Amino acid sequence: MTERFTPTPEDRFSFGLWTVGWQGRDPFGDATRPPLDPVESVQRLAALGAYGVTFHDDDLIPFGATEAERESHIKHFRQALDKTGLVVPMATTNLFTHPVFKDGGFTSNDRDVRRYALRKTIRNIDLAAELGAQTYVAWGGREGAESGAAKDVRAALDRMKEAFDLLGEYVTEQGYDLRFAIEPKPNEPRGDILLPTVGHALAFIERLERPELYGVNPEVGHEQMAGLNFPHSIAQALWAGKLFHIDLNGQNGIKYDQDLRFGAGDLRSAFWLVDLLETGGYEGPRHFDFKPPRTEDFDGVWASAAGCMRNYLILRERAAAFRSDPTVQEALRAARLDELVLPTAEDGLAALLADRSAFEEFDVTAAAERGMAFEALDQLAMDHLLGVA
Amino acid sequence: MTERFTPTPEDRFSFGLWTVGWQGRDPFGDATRPPLDPVESVQRLAALGAYGVTFHDDDLIPFGATEAERESHIKHFRQALDKTGLVVPMATTNLFTHPVFKDGGFTSNDRDVRRYALRKTIRNIDLAAELGAQTYVAWGGREGAESGAAKDVRAALDRMKEAFDLLGEYVTEQGYDLRFAIEPKPNEPRGDILLPTVGHALAFIERLERPELYGVNPEVGHEQMAGLNFPHSIAQALWAGKLFHIDLNGQNGIKYDQDLRFGAGDLRSAFWLVDLLETGGYEGPRHFDFKPPRTEDFDGVWASAAGCMRNYLILRERAAAFRSDPTVQEALRAARLDELVLPTAEDGLAALLADRSAFEEFDVTAAAERGMAFEALDQLAMDHLLGVA
Amino acid sequence: MTERFTPTPEDRFSFGLWTVGWQGRDPFGDATRPPLDPVESVQRLAALGAYGVTFHDDDLIPFGATEAERESHIKHFRQALDKTGLVVPMATTNLFTHPVFKDGGFTSNDRDVRRYALRKTIRNIDLAAELGAQTYVAWGGREGAESGAAKDVRAALDRMKEAFDLLGEYVTEQGYDLRFAIEPKPNEPRGDILLPTVGHALAFIERLERPELYGVNPEVGHEQMAGLNFPHSIAQALWAGKLFHIDLNGQNGIKYDQDLRFGAGDLRSAFWLVDLLETGGYEGPRHFDFKPPRTEDFDGVWASAAGCMRNYLILRERAAAFRSDPTVQEALRAARLDELVLPTAEDGLAALLADRSAFEEFDVTAAAERGMAFEALDQLAMDHLLGVA
Amino acid sequence: MTERFTPTPEDRFSFGLWTVGWQGRDPFGDATRPPLDPVESVQRLAALGAYGVTFHDDDLIPFGATEAERESHIKHFRQALDKTGLVVPMATTNLFTHPVFKDGGFTSNDRDVRRYALRKTIRNIDLAAELGAQTYVAWGGREGAESGAAKDVRAALDRMKEAFDLLGEYVTEQGYDLRFAIEPKPNEPRGDILLPTVGHALAFIERLERPELYGVNPEVGHEQMAGLNFPHSIAQALWAGKLFHIDLNGQNGIKYDQDLRFGAGDLRSAFWLVDLLETGGYEGPRHFDFKPPRTEDFDGVWASAAGCMRNYLILRERAAAFRSDPTVQEALRAARLDELVLPTAEDGLAALLADRSAFEEFDVTAAAERGMAFEALDQLAMDHLLGVA
Repeated sequence: MTERFTPTPEDRFSFGLWTVGWQGRDPFGDATRPPLDPVESVQRLAALGAYGVTFHDDDLIPFGATEAERESHIKHFRQALDKTGLVVPMATTNLFTHPVFKDGGFTSNDRDVRRYALRKTIRNIDLAAELGAQTYVAWGGREGAESGAAKDVRAALDRMKEAFDLLGEYVTEQGYDLRFAIEPKPNEPRGDILLPTVGHALAFIERLERPELYGVNPEVGHEQMAGLNFPHSIAQALWAGKLFHIDLNGQNGIKYDQDLRFGAGDLRSAFWLVDLLETGGYEGPRHFDFKPPRTEDFDGVWASAAGCMRNYLILRERAAAFRSDPTVQEALRAARLDELVLPTAEDGLAALLADRSAFEEFDVTAAAERGMAFEALDQLAMDHLLGVA
Repeated sequence: MTERFTPTPEDRFSFGLWTVGWQGRDPFGDATRPPLDPVESVQRLAALGAYGVTFHDDDLIPFGATEAERESHIKHFRQALDKTGLVVPMATTNLFTHPVFKDGGFTSNDRDVRRYALRKTIRNIDLAAELGAQTYVAWGGREGAESGAAKDVRAALDRMKEAFDLLGEYVTEQGYDLRFAIEPKPNEPRGDILLPTVGHALAFIERLERPELYGVNPEVGHEQMAGLNFPHSIAQALWAGKLFHIDLNGQNGIKYDQDLRFGAGDLRSAFWLVDLLETGGYEGPRHFDFKPPRTEDFDGVWASAAGCMRNYLILRERAAAFRSDPTVQEALRAARLDELVLPTAEDGLAALLADRSAFEEFDVTAAAERGMAFEALDQLAMDHLLGVA
Repeated sequence: MTERFTPTPEDRFSFGLWTVGWQGRDPFGDATRPPLDPVESVQRLAALGAYGVTFHDDDLIPFGATEAERESHIKHFRQALDKTGLVVPMATTNLFTHPVFKDGGFTSNDRDVRRYALRKTIRNIDLAAELGAQTYVAWGGREGAESGAAKDVRAALDRMKEAFDLLGEYVTEQGYDLRFAIEPKPNEPRGDILLPTVGHALAFIERLERPELYGVNPEVGHEQMAGLNFPHSIAQALWAGKLFHIDLNGQNGIKYDQDLRFGAGDLRSAFWLVDLLETGGYEGPRHFDFKPPRTEDFDGVWASAAGCMRNYLILRERAAAFRSDPTVQEALRAARLDELVLPTAEDGLAALLADRSAFEEFDVTAAAERGMAFEALDQLAMDHLLGVA
Repeated sequence: MTERFTPTPEDRFSFGLWTVGWQGRDPFGDATRPPLDPVESVQRLAALGAYGVTFHDDDLIPFGATEAERESHIKHFRQALDKTGLVVPMATTNLFTHPVFKDGGFTSNDRDVRRYALRKTIRNIDLAAELGAQTYVAWGGREGAESGAAKDVRAALDRMKEAFDLLGEYVTEQGYDLRFAIEPKPNEPRGDILLPTVGHALAFIERLERPELYGVNPEVGHEQMAGLNFPHSIAQALWAGKLFHIDLNGQNGIKYDQDLRFGAGDLRSAFWLVDLLETGGYEGPRHFDFKPPRTEDFDGVWASAAGCMRNYLILRERAAAFRSDPTVQEALRAARLDELVLPTAEDGLAALLADRSAFEEFDVTAAAERGMAFEALDQLAMDHLLGVA
């Protein structure tokens, strides 16, 4: 039974170096695992059936490395990629670990930190482009505040816009085939982070100089930390043409950022997410951004990485069965999903205003009595999810 | 000491008829107060020092009233306005109470309900324009779902866009001086509501045919129900030029929608909100959308309404004192707020790339050691809020 | 495939009259369904395979009914029970709908309301005993406050204790075979409710005169509204010997009280809950306290009720398969669950203190390196839940 | 104006060494401050007006120190205490930082880790007793799980009980004047922590062998991370006679553990908390368990520590003024707080049952119409809090 859930590169699964390489340091505890060589991560992920690997600059090249060390790290990484066939679809910048970023990167109150953050980002954009990445993710985890006067949010958004406009100018001038994906998060490590949800990020993008270069990189747990319905936000991002990348993981509701493996956390939401990704036109990688719990040794790390992919494949099979089941299709019609795709007033405003059956003669009581048949439909979904349909 | 916190129409405080008129019906209990005549509400609010009153169509004219009853209700309301001098800065549509809207108004799966909702809205837009309102609020409280397959969110956003585009066409054709303010809410009464946050609403607006006609009407408690920092979302709305209206109230964190009077709930956040509204260029009414708790009789209702205004005035005084205090101004400089308003790279990309002091020769350790001085600043804010500075 | 998930009375499923009878009135909307005759509910539930039915006094006998009406309602209800074989395992009091309870029942600041609440409860205890109920649930939904000075919590707990002690005295004197189950909830309809979690209720019970008469009636969604792990709280209640009854339903995280059908909401948590109820010695009814969404007509109501039971049965099968799978048993040993049941110091304190291998000579580094193997175990659980093990 | 909020040892303010000594390491970032010598902390805290200092074993004596190093650390600490007059009212054990505790201390699945944890605790209890501490806090931050099968909660509670019973036996045998205070927390660093709220901890204590030896040490932010009303939980702990110690800090709602300085976060809740502590019979230290944000250098650290005390003193003054204001006392009577302290049935059950005015002849409508006057009362509280009464 297992074989049908074994991943292959065609499934386009990718992992961050920082995920499997997470050492288990948390706010209350020291590392429980030694560092993991990026080369080993590449080999292991390839062996598990992954397609791609992604990185922050400092994941690959330790902060403060000399130029020679840097070249050596890159060389070994490239060799591992070549040998395994893994690709690098995405890269990103670490603007949060070093204490210099304690008040942010692009929106630090310190102007020279902002300049440094931009240069650090540009340097890694060059490497990302060299390695063939097509998406550059920007998570501004330190762009925020814990107290009210510490950050003038409008000024900070000006600085955020300035930074992204400069980066857009840079990739355009360089001719890189690279688009940016902004990753929202409501809080942690800052008390409140700027661009806290998919919506706030989508809105921000519209004020940039080259909006077409920017999309979002939503993360399951981040949107759920605000109690929001993740598939709903993904649907809005797709509707806006802005789902450039995605971070898959698991979260148990509103609390600290858990980064559980995909499938853990809200399972029903994961089902609807896979359903949407597979039918909604998303063509990017299925990227896992999770943290193997610090209770685990390396066996647990790889079990956890394998579990992410396995769960995606199980849910993909189940969602496809749901959509192709004639009973479900009938239930969707009973719930009038076929009517939702019809225009409300395809005949235009004047016709709507003239239509007495729409208002003056509308039988509001009769319309109110029609049941929506959502519970039967949702139970069918549950049956498919659980494999008992 | 009290006099300085007594409201006058110059303070531009407005109240919804549905706020003071709320009868106390909740999910677990029946009404505790009798209905309140809109005329009495107008008189009382005027006597308390309010400037404006707002309404849903069904607040003023009971659902299902005859044409004659409708005219009579409007006439008495106008007379009360004339007599008291209260204005109607905003109006809105009730697309949530009647069972016909159980699956939404503009995005109901039922096409004829959508048509009915549009016509009901247009009818009240006419009245709003007649009464001089300049803002038309749209809260889509029933636009959402409790289960995954029940709503195709992308199709629903198509319908939402269609509806707002039609309304924009209508007010343009009629020549009304009326703009729309979309009110986001994450959930309740639906399991998940579309356009759940200020961000999602701002992003949606950018895809409309006449985006300039649409802004947002954020409500304190709604954004806080998603655990978001309300002043941060207001700042982003101001930054985008989209804060068309605001709903002030109180909420104690992530739970059911409490609609407490303004000042109750998160008091520090209320302080920063008033600071931002008073200095950020917002010129609309200070509109209270709260519910006097059902424990109260009418004395409590009016005490609660008075409390909303009083608390705003107290916070306004305290915020002004904070901003004008030289010690605070010094602390803001120590926290480098003056640097945040400076461009990061006013000399352009090429100069930034060429500046070795920005990266290669940047003393990252020294920069990391500089404290941000935010705690001293925040304590000054606390002192001002509490009146002990 | 369906047959194996068809409920029978042996499964001991029970439903509240108020669940299927909920008319869909919510804070923002009117009823979408007409009232349902309790007799019809009994018949329908029996036909669906239920075992029991439960009620608040006012569900069965409308508030304010005459004595003759009361007798008639009871008579018809009894006849329906006799005809269908349904039993009444539990009953409870409505101390929240009528406006007289706006500040609570047992802890209202009004002494005469408290006396009335006690008498109303006692009257229904008599009926509960007559109908053979063995559990009397007490949900103090209105016992709480929205503001700080409105309730002296210590005095209110005195009153709560007084009320429960009086009720315990009453059932003891009457010789009823009836125990009380206190139902905790953190908030809604009050801003904060007393005894907000299973823990707070368990602690309170220990201060009563006859603690053996009182246990808890935890509700899935209530504990989840505080972000707590429901199976953990159930485990603590079982550990304390206090799980007298349970309310099964679904909730999507921290927000308003959703009362979804069982299985909707957090599915993984539901799996662990069923696993625990089936193996942890709980022998009471599996009671569903949910609300069929107001989008539904009566077909949807019964589909929703059937779904509650079906989902329980699916999860019961899956949990049993998980526990009996030899691979799982091996994984549990790898995760050292077998060690957790062993005493830490079965040889006593002195031996522990004398054991140098326990501290002075303990190889803390080696112990720290042992992986806990939880991820592999949890993936096995996921496989069983999804039926792909 | 400042002088009246200057702390003195009579105010009984205490701080953990780990609070001011926190280096700013968080899940996404490295330390921003160097280590702080405990001796310096003692001197600084004394200079600021504190009364006591508290510690985890590893705060004072680095994990793995030799016996000689240990003695030296203790000696220098004692000297600083003697010199400054600071006392040690409380101590506690670090059972969470070292990777050996990754699955917990007292409830780790590893039996030898449990034995080690007990011995580590006992060793520090000896030191605590030597230094004159009267309270020994136990925060089981790692006692919990991220997934369902990983922890058999009932078995874990058996182990937790075993551990606390052994510790109670130990202090009894040694004749130490030391009581235990259990500190609840819902989650972080574990996905779910055992004994997640004040209620769960209070309930657990009742099953111990020597319940009189154990109470709770509630922390503001921990209870608020579950969305609970902190003063309500404190009131229940006081009511149960179990408030042995308290951790004061600030938290902005349901999110990661923020550990802000006292006064930051929910200010109104802080006001009611101080009101309750000052009038409710709590006689222990006012202990601050906060983390100066990592944006701060040492100036910010000490500003933050001073702010904790200052805010307590401001709130203490304001709460006292509220309680002594005759207008408030009148408002409390109007809200019938005076009736809440009266027994509901001081004449006993039989008299209540015989009293027709309590039920049969009770005018429920008239009683329902009486307003509770809570809004006017709460506005008075707001006025006092803000200093405008």
